Amino acid sequence: MTTPPVTTAPVAPGPLGRWFAEAGERRYTRTRRIPLDALEGWHTDARTGDLVHDRGAFFTVRGLDVSAPEGPVPHWAQPILDQPETGVLGLLVRDFGGRPHVLAQAKPEPGNAGGLQLAPTVQATRSNFTRAHGGRTVPYLRYFRDPPSRGLVADVRQSEQGAWFYRKRNRNMIVRTTEDVEVLPGYRWMTLPRVHALLGAGDVVNMDARSVLACLPPPPGSAGRALHSGREILHWLTGVRSRAGLRTRPVPLRGLPGWHRTEHAVSHDSGRFFDVIAVEVRAGGREVRRWTQPMLRPHGTGIVAFLLTRVDGVPHVLVHAAAEPGSVDEAELTATVCCTPENYDVLPPGARPRFLDEVLAAPPDRVLFDALLSEEGGRFHHALNRYLIVAVDGPGPYEDAGTHRWMTAHQLSALLRHSHYVTVQARTLLTCLRSLTGPDGTLER
Amino acid sequence: MTTPPVTTAPVAPGPLGRWFAEAGERRYTRTRRIPLDALEGWHTDARTGDLVHDRGAFFTVRGLDVSAPEGPVPHWAQPILDQPETGVLGLLVRDFGGRPHVLAQAKPEPGNAGGLQLAPTVQATRSNFTRAHGGRTVPYLRYFRDPPSRGLVADVRQSEQGAWFYRKRNRNMIVRTTEDVEVLPGYRWMTLPRVHALLGAGDVVNMDARSVLACLPPPPGSAGRALHSGREILHWLTGVRSRAGLRTRPVPLRGLPGWHRTEHAVSHDSGRFFDVIAVEVRAGGREVRRWTQPMLRPHGTGIVAFLLTRVDGVPHVLVHAAAEPGSVDEAELTATVCCTPENYDVLPPGARPRFLDEVLAAPPDRVLFDALLSEEGGRFHHALNRYLIVAVDGPGPYEDAGTHRWMTAHQLSALLRHSHYVTVQARTLLTCLRSLTGPDGTLER
Repeated sequence: MTTPPVTTAPVAPGPLGRWFAEAGERRYTRTRRIPLDALEGWHTDARTGDLVHDRGAFFTVRGLDVSAPEGPVPHWAQPILDQPETGVLGLLVRDFGGRPHVLAQAKPEPGNAGGLQLAPTVQATRSNFTRAHGGRTVPYLRYFRDPPSRGLVADVRQSEQGAWFYRKRNRNMIVRTTEDVEVLPGYRWMTLPRVHALLGAGDVVNMDARSVLACLPPPPGSAGRALHSGREILHWLTGVRSRAGLRTRPVPLRGLPGWHRTEHAVSHDSGRFFDVIAVEVRAGGREVRRWTQPMLRPHGTGIVAFLLTRVDGVPHVLVHAAAEPGSVDEAELTATVCCTPENYDVLPPGARPRFLDEVLAAPPDRVLFDALLSEEGGRFHHALNRYLIVAVDGPGPYEDAGTHRWMTAHQLSALLRHSHYVTVQARTLLTCLRSLTGPDGTLER
Repeated sequence: MTTPPVTTAPVAPGPLGRWFAEAGERRYTRTRRIPLDALEGWHTDARTGDLVHDRGAFFTVRGLDVSAPEGPVPHWAQPILDQPETGVLGLLVRDFGGRPHVLAQAKPEPGNAGGLQLAPTVQATRSNFTRAHGGRTVPYLRYFRDPPSRGLVADVRQSEQGAWFYRKRNRNMIVRTTEDVEVLPGYRWMTLPRVHALLGAGDVVNMDARSVLACLPPPPGSAGRALHSGREILHWLTGVRSRAGLRTRPVPLRGLPGWHRTEHAVSHDSGRFFDVIAVEVRAGGREVRRWTQPMLRPHGTGIVAFLLTRVDGVPHVLVHAAAEPGSVDEAELTATVCCTPENYDVLPPGARPRFLDEVLAAPPDRVLFDALLSEEGGRFHHALNRYLIVAVDGPGPYEDAGTHRWMTAHQLSALLRHSHYVTVQARTLLTCLRSLTGPDGTLER
């Protein structure tokens, strides 16, 4: 495998780079860690030890008890972020010169490793979205509140990190407009190829943008013949979901087995997995200029990879049907490999993910995509995953264990019209895969 | 509205009636109520008061705390059946003389008001289904355990009564075979029109059969132009699901506010809603000849109705997006009206369901379908709902409140390929609607 790319965000020179640099002068966050007890507006619940916002807003850090009777780790406990509110990730699309452009914003988040990132047009909480005059505080929100039918491209609630969030969903919306749209400072129309090119160029395109871009319908004529019919895929997934998967039960954060709380963090006794920390944030270009909040800080860099093969010339990726503690409905379709390798040093050998070694040992000429990208910087502190697409000769024996199936990008897109099918990591990879393919769906390398 | 039909099951005379009568002599259940403390193999949990099976099998009767901050009843508590295992409802289909036939079985259940009913080919628990030699104890199971791709018609986990079950799902499977199939006593090949005719003839076709029949693909060429596109329907449902719906929390059954336990039942203080009771069952034609179990016994007869209108000649039904306490993911699409009217005597006036009065006041010539049908007799004791399809002049103002939308049967069918969309009551009504339509989807009256 090639050397990991650097984590800072080298946005290309030229007008785009200048716009990004200028935006970064006005919009920024400075984050520093503080003791958990120094959180303001948050408290430790006297009975449970959960970290709770004083008004019950934002999210809660709870404990979760997880049973996986048929898995290699049959039982564990962990902290988890419980954020029941559904926010809106909205992407505005407009044609200029016959080519679709998306309205991106340059947005900083406290947990970002590299500062400013490209975000969707709108990232709004539910209260922003439903408030009568919400349009005043969140720019462009009005385009998403009652879109005309002809402009509605996608509107679907999608899951986020089921290992860290308890049943979290955000509403991914794409709306096409023909109106003249005022471009505010910090916003910019960009072509899809331009956004795609930035995906592989460092940690620039944020998780929310990658997620909502994955909900774009596939290019017409790009279907190709799939190894398995859609009905077979659903049959397989129904079978996986009907087995005894994970059973979860919220439990107090205080006294969570295997975890301990210090002045600065809730940590696993092994030092692996993640910490719950507290930060103070000072921000420019936002209404609120200073706040404190808990964040989840993972240990180690994750590996998120699709194996890819061509079947009769049509690219297929190997999806993994896997349940996570925060899944709403058992297994979703995720990357072939989606893990933090170091964690398996403290887990039974049987827990080591299938195909991880194959990804790590891939010769450079089989690595089609390779970039360090960060997860949502509003909740996760320096959560970097190395996203890879690795070509293999297939279909081969990869499906033998019943946990993985070869699917086309078109098939994943069809399922993305609905909730509960494709994880946020697989959505990122689908967007990365599109960055490699031409308008007809063929791989460009 | 016409007089309610009788509840006993007058199966037509002739060979079918004789077969049914003969089956009823071998296969039967006799049920009598017993005190809760007389349950054998079950106990009342010392700490929670929950009714629990000694080996943790079958299901548990728990308490559930429900918050609906934006609803007319913002908070309540209730008992609920928690049955995490996913069972299989399998329907075997085979062509005879060019016409599809389904293999039905005559099956008694302890809670049935009318005794024997027509059930799908297979009703198996997960342990039956996954056991290596499961085929020995459950006839025809082998057809569903690894169906050839060309015979796979449907395989999807569907929800059941969200007011009574906590996140229950069963796997609805339809498999088409070309093999010669031995017809065991108590089983019979029947055409779809034959099953459909029995739907309106009394409480004969059981809930599981109605549910799995709804998962049959619609007749080809029956689509018709819909008032709303599929994308608009998903946008509307995503919007409903993104609002603050129901939040639920398991709580102890003992001391559940508003409920009390007597020797024979856990009941609501008002005498409405339902009781949790205990029964002793003696059965013929089963491996187990005597057992005891808790059951849920509803008070009153429910009204489950679709309003139906024609838009440019295409039949549309008015679906209601509504969350129930046991819903996995907020609102599903249910009947226009789905309630037990008496319950609203003890609830605030604002809770009375929209369109209930319109259904109750419908003149007889607008009532296209009207039958008393029972819900699952393995868990529910004499749970009868009056299923109605009522024609109205539309589309009219029915969608104004944002809670209801007109959809075609074809659109509901498309969503039935996936979980989380169509409730079991709406599935029953979809099957009833199909019983009224010809092969091209036109209404026959």
